[in-house]
Amino acid sequence: MQKTIFALVALSLASPLQATSPKQPTVEAVADKMLESDTVAWNFVEGVTTEIGPRMAGTEAEARARDWAQAWLNANGFANVKVETFPIQGWVRGEEKAWVVSPFAQPLTITALGRSVATPPDGVTGEVAYFPSYAALEAAPEGSLKGKIAFIDHHMKRTQDGSGYGFAGPARWTGPGLAASKGALATVIRSIGTENHRTPHAGGTSFPDGVAATPAGALSNPDADNLVRMIKRGKPLTLRLVLTPKDLGVVESGNVTGEIIGRDPSLPPVLLACHLDSWDLGTGAIDDGAGCGIAAAAAKGVAAAGQPLRTIRVLFAGSEETGLWGSKAYATAHKGEKIAVGIESDFGADRIWRIDTNFTESNPALYKRLADAVARFGVTAGKDEANGGADLNLARESWAAIIDLNQDGTHYFDLHHTPDDTLDKIDPAALRQNVAVWTQVTGILANESGMIKPADQN
Amino acid sequence: MQKTIFALVALSLASPLQATSPKQPTVEAVADKMLESDTVAWNFVEGVTTEIGPRMAGTEAEARARDWAQAWLNANGFANVKVETFPIQGWVRGEEKAWVVSPFAQPLTITALGRSVATPPDGVTGEVAYFPSYAALEAAPEGSLKGKIAFIDHHMKRTQDGSGYGFAGPARWTGPGLAASKGALATVIRSIGTENHRTPHAGGTSFPDGVAATPAGALSNPDADNLVRMIKRGKPLTLRLVLTPKDLGVVESGNVTGEIIGRDPSLPPVLLACHLDSWDLGTGAIDDGAGCGIAAAAAKGVAAAGQPLRTIRVLFAGSEETGLWGSKAYATAHKGEKIAVGIESDFGADRIWRIDTNFTESNPALYKRLADAVARFGVTAGKDEANGGADLNLARESWAAIIDLNQDGTHYFDLHHTPDDTLDKIDPAALRQNVAVWTQVTGILANESGMIKPADQN
Repeated sequence: MQKTIFALVALSLASPLQATSPKQPTVEAVADKMLESDTVAWNFVEGVTTEIGPRMAGTEAEARARDWAQAWLNANGFANVKVETFPIQGWVRGEEKAWVVSPFAQPLTITALGRSVATPPDGVTGEVAYFPSYAALEAAPEGSLKGKIAFIDHHMKRTQDGSGYGFAGPARWTGPGLAASKGALATVIRSIGTENHRTPHAGGTSFPDGVAATPAGALSNPDADNLVRMIKRGKPLTLRLVLTPKDLGVVESGNVTGEIIGRDPSLPPVLLACHLDSWDLGTGAIDDGAGCGIAAAAAKGVAAAGQPLRTIRVLFAGSEETGLWGSKAYATAHKGEKIAVGIESDFGADRIWRIDTNFTESNPALYKRLADAVARFGVTAGKDEANGGADLNLARESWAAIIDLNQDGTHYFDLHHTPDDTLDKIDPAALRQNVAVWTQVTGILANESGMIKPADQN
Repeated sequence: MQKTIFALVALSLASPLQATSPKQPTVEAVADKMLESDTVAWNFVEGVTTEIGPRMAGTEAEARARDWAQAWLNANGFANVKVETFPIQGWVRGEEKAWVVSPFAQPLTITALGRSVATPPDGVTGEVAYFPSYAALEAAPEGSLKGKIAFIDHHMKRTQDGSGYGFAGPARWTGPGLAASKGALATVIRSIGTENHRTPHAGGTSFPDGVAATPAGALSNPDADNLVRMIKRGKPLTLRLVLTPKDLGVVESGNVTGEIIGRDPSLPPVLLACHLDSWDLGTGAIDDGAGCGIAAAAAKGVAAAGQPLRTIRVLFAGSEETGLWGSKAYATAHKGEKIAVGIESDFGADRIWRIDTNFTESNPALYKRLADAVARFGVTAGKDEANGGADLNLARESWAAIIDLNQDGTHYFDLHHTPDDTLDKIDPAALRQNVAVWTQVTGILANESGMIKPADQN
């Protein structure tokens, strides 16, 4: 279909709609229908969690997930469906066990952190050095942890916007490295999570240059509670850890993309991103099967209202969890390519409660149209500067417009990176609200002929 | 202290109280105080879960728990604290893993059922024979499961009174044996549990005489859901199981008892029972550390109101979980010994909502006194025939009075026999309500000079 004068007139009237035939629904109507009856996002996340399950970065399971996702995109009307591979440093879990050796001998529930090195097959044993917070570990003298197992007991708090992750995350991200730099032979952390189940939260850690990596694991919250009770009894506490993860060296991963082709391919596309890989303990339902389902359902929903002006591209990034590899590789491979606007879904499947953009001040009319259009779905107009998520490197690096459709994260860290990230945790009604909001927002953006973020050439 | 005329007069006035000094609180006052500030039950369950943790029947950990419990009872003023040992058939968990081999290859979360035999070290592989219910398995033709892995998908429903266990329990208790009798090489069941976490529910199973035991395991509910989704896709499903539990042969277990000595040791005692062992996956907080804490706190609470007329004996039974060994051994060892009344706490730590007895009709005055006395704690007067629980064999076999102080079981099977049975799951306020009710009831019974269940000589 050619871009027509009629369509341009329609767009100039600030309508999000393109020219439609009398029987073609509007984007609004499609979005409203999604709220009641979307099955596309559910079909994606039900399918990928059931037919693939865990899809750890760089593994054969992730490769199967790429094949599966390509077939799914083709079956759902996407064009230009393809995989772009890239190399990553592979890491897989091995055996993982922990025990209190004395004085209160009993097993503990643990999972290795990404990039943890292995203990010897029969484990390491050491006295616990207790740190109630990351700050307490920072304050420990150099060399003071020699021969000890550090226990970082930094509690995460539940927050709607996920800011608790910023508060507690460093205990996992850099805590083991900091402990190693002070001589610790291994580190255990309290899981970066907000629930009290015996399901430890996996996740990546990293060690500073010049500091040899050590074994590092996360205890479930109830296990961490138990250790704290033991420590309060005042006697030295000895732990034994057996963690045998493996560094696989360089292995292949890949990004999957597909497009709804716009009427004017010369205009920069709308990029809808998520990640296809998952941690290995769960089946990657809320992290991030739901996100890919939402993004794809929105693209398909907009197409149901007629061919959009701009191309809509979905990016199912690979190997996000172990180092944002897919997003980085995509940004490198597509360097210089213009993106009109990037949106990412990677914070579960609970309801969207707020819209933020990075053009709220520079393009207030468009921002207002977007905010006004999603208010009926219970989304409030936020004034924060959106900067997207892990899978939007290309958008960020090309100074594109970015929109954050913020999901309610109150319960996200109950499940994040745990065995409990399974399909049953998704509320279908909340998932549909996501699809409705995304369809509405994407529909406006994909039919916007003007620059979305005026400071840049998009 | 002697039994006095004064005390008898007081008792004849239907008061639960004995003679008290002006400064000694009444049982009512003690019970009321327990509701606000009991720390004894909490101290027990916090201690045993922290300092011992899992205490599987017949293991070294259970032996440590007996030592710990004896020390605790002595420290808390109990007399005649002792252990009575008995032999059991030991069984311990080994490795436990499961995978979908095809067509949707992925790992599953499983735990072996008690008395399951081991697979070969590299596992067994077989096509799934699906049974949506126990009745469907019953209807399967003889020999029809040859070479297959039975999957019994009998769903448990949440009930306040625990009756869902009776509805779904057979899938675990006898399902694997039934499947084995029809040729199954192994069985997996949907966990007998009401929540949706990746924490499978352990528990015993048994195989009929003449049927060779097979490997048998429970999948978590989300894993069972996932299998069902796969099965609905209509292709044959192949599973692989590695379960390596061990039969330990005959090992030693034991019961722990302690007493608050009554003023008239010639009267049959009040028996307060629970079990000290736990399944190995959790730390035995709600099953049944809480129960022993409640029973012991009530006995101690009654003593705080003055020496009771009758002796109160607490029985911390051993090896309940793997075959009610302790209760049976206790009934055998004490055969012929009179028990006035038995009460058991072995259904978690949620609030008591109903009192039932087996003398409601034969001793209505006493029943009314009991029911009236606990109404202030939110306990309703039930008309069911109480028959006690697993740890009350001696009371049942001696035709003693039995009281059921029924706890709210709505959430009990979320945790039952899972890794999640940990201290944090206990609501301290609900635990205190249990102690208050138990103290009140035990106080009345231990100071009752007449026969509690008149049909018998107690």
